[in-house]
Amino acid sequence: MSDILQLAEAITRLLHAENILLLCHKNPDGDTLGSAAALYHALRRLGKTVGVLCSDPIPHRYDYMGITMFNNEFTPAFIVAVDVAGVQLFGEGVNEYTKRIHLCIDHHGTNSGYADAMLLDPAAAATAEIAFAVINALGVEIDSVIADCLYTGLSTDTGCFKFGNTTAQTHTIAAKLMELGAHTVELNVTLFESKSRRRLNVEKIALENLQFYLNDRCAMTYLTLDEINSTGADPNDLEGITGIPRAIEGVDVGITLRQLENGSYKVSVRTMPGIDAGAICARLGGGGHRQAAGCEIFAGLENAKSALLSEVEKHLCKE
Amino acid sequence: MSDILQLAEAITRLLHAENILLLCHKNPDGDTLGSAAALYHALRRLGKTVGVLCSDPIPHRYDYMGITMFNNEFTPAFIVAVDVAGVQLFGEGVNEYTKRIHLCIDHHGTNSGYADAMLLDPAAAATAEIAFAVINALGVEIDSVIADCLYTGLSTDTGCFKFGNTTAQTHTIAAKLMELGAHTVELNVTLFESKSRRRLNVEKIALENLQFYLNDRCAMTYLTLDEINSTGADPNDLEGITGIPRAIEGVDVGITLRQLENGSYKVSVRTMPGIDAGAICARLGGGGHRQAAGCEIFAGLENAKSALLSEVEKHLCKE
Repeated sequence: MSDILQLAEAITRLLHAENILLLCHKNPDGDTLGSAAALYHALRRLGKTVGVLCSDPIPHRYDYMGITMFNNEFTPAFIVAVDVAGVQLFGEGVNEYTKRIHLCIDHHGTNSGYADAMLLDPAAAATAEIAFAVINALGVEIDSVIADCLYTGLSTDTGCFKFGNTTAQTHTIAAKLMELGAHTVELNVTLFESKSRRRLNVEKIALENLQFYLNDRCAMTYLTLDEINSTGADPNDLEGITGIPRAIEGVDVGITLRQLENGSYKVSVRTMPGIDAGAICARLGGGGHRQAAGCEIFAGLENAKSALLSEVEKHLCKE
Repeated sequence: MSDILQLAEAITRLLHAENILLLCHKNPDGDTLGSAAALYHALRRLGKTVGVLCSDPIPHRYDYMGITMFNNEFTPAFIVAVDVAGVQLFGEGVNEYTKRIHLCIDHHGTNSGYADAMLLDPAAAATAEIAFAVINALGVEIDSVIADCLYTGLSTDTGCFKFGNTTAQTHTIAAKLMELGAHTVELNVTLFESKSRRRLNVEKIALENLQFYLNDRCAMTYLTLDEINSTGADPNDLEGITGIPRAIEGVDVGITLRQLENGSYKVSVRTMPGIDAGAICARLGGGGHRQAAGCEIFAGLENAKSALLSEVEKHLCKE
């Protein structure tokens, strides 16, 4: 297991490090990229040689972060994982650097402890909150580029301050980043107010396929492989679709079925407090949390629906 | 025109007032209700007799604010308008109290100055920010009920800290309200993660009617009166629909047409920076801001669309 460091000790190690490589997790999101980019700019300001590497390409909407992918410009001597909860999340493309991770900076309480040392704060809504503290402790003044990077991590991991992980500290840091010049108006439009036409078409199909069951307490929708392909949607476009059925007033269990390449259905179950999504999915070979869980059903659509409804019915009766 | 008061003078007047009636605007939203409710609780804590009145019923989702409508329990002697930018926004139902407004607390820069005196801060994202300052200056300790009311105003007027009016001060106050016990997890679900089936059906129709014009730079959708009636939607359910077309990637002008009872079309135009929505609507007898404007077109759907597209085309060519 990793050594758990206090902030001061992590700072000491970073200040002593040279040729630092910052590793993000695969399928990079705003927090892993924003936190790594902020640390990249801050460490370079201290005169250090730094690179950022990710197994997948950096989506173009994050171009404003001002980072390019590490391309062997130097020989990394100190490897820092940023927002990576487990070693399997690095992705295949960066294998040569993940054998020894010197430091992991993360906010996932589930972090598996694969690094030599860890700066971990499970109370932080985003790794960006920890990166903010690190940069302040490094003595680097936060400019508007660093503020933009940190704001991206903060806002994307909290659904723009909407999710339950948002704390008073999250808002306090957001206020400071705005004072330091973060371009929050433009960032919020880019990150939260913009939808691809593909995504819009996915939503349209999900709404058309939506049906209500069990006295309208269960709402279920699905996307077949043909439907997904007809929209040209990529995994990014499908994100968040699972939230639609449960968000309807009066619905206690929301279910989304998405057909995979092999024909089976990937199922997401979202529930209101009092109904255990994890237990529903466990009976079908899956698992997860109390309010959000998943499973995969190798069956046709109607059989998959029936299997799900029969489990949901038992749980609705249990109350 | 109103006297513009400093905070201290407004506090003096409130402290000297007795039998205070707080008036909200019609079609009440989270800010007018949350700010009025917070002031109601604070002023009652000072031993004052206070009531809250609105021309329209208070939607049930705001029940947690702990206010009931004023029902002539006392004879109002000091009338305070909360978040009401113009006298026409009170609504017909409260006419007997709007002849003389002693104090108006508001954040709309466009306030018409109908009140004797005004505590106005156009830099505040929500009237709730001003109410927060008032309650602190009154010396009332903010408990979790008041914090919930103020957080409601703050978050609903900023689209949960997403809209361009959000400032560092907004986040700072949100942080304080969380520390003071605001139930932000539950409130965010109620206010932002919950949709009526009527609203969902409105969105479904809006997506089905969506079309693209002018090399896909203009997206337009519409809702006929028959379609609106088929969903059973009320004005609340229609709110925010106007944001859908403009939020599509690559779209510079988003237009929504909604048929009114008299058969005409209420038009909302939303634009990207660089294209003047107000100018587009002004040519059609309406007006508004640079990025959000509106007009009413007395014509059939196809004629209304043509008139709009012809104006939009001119503005897209101007660039």
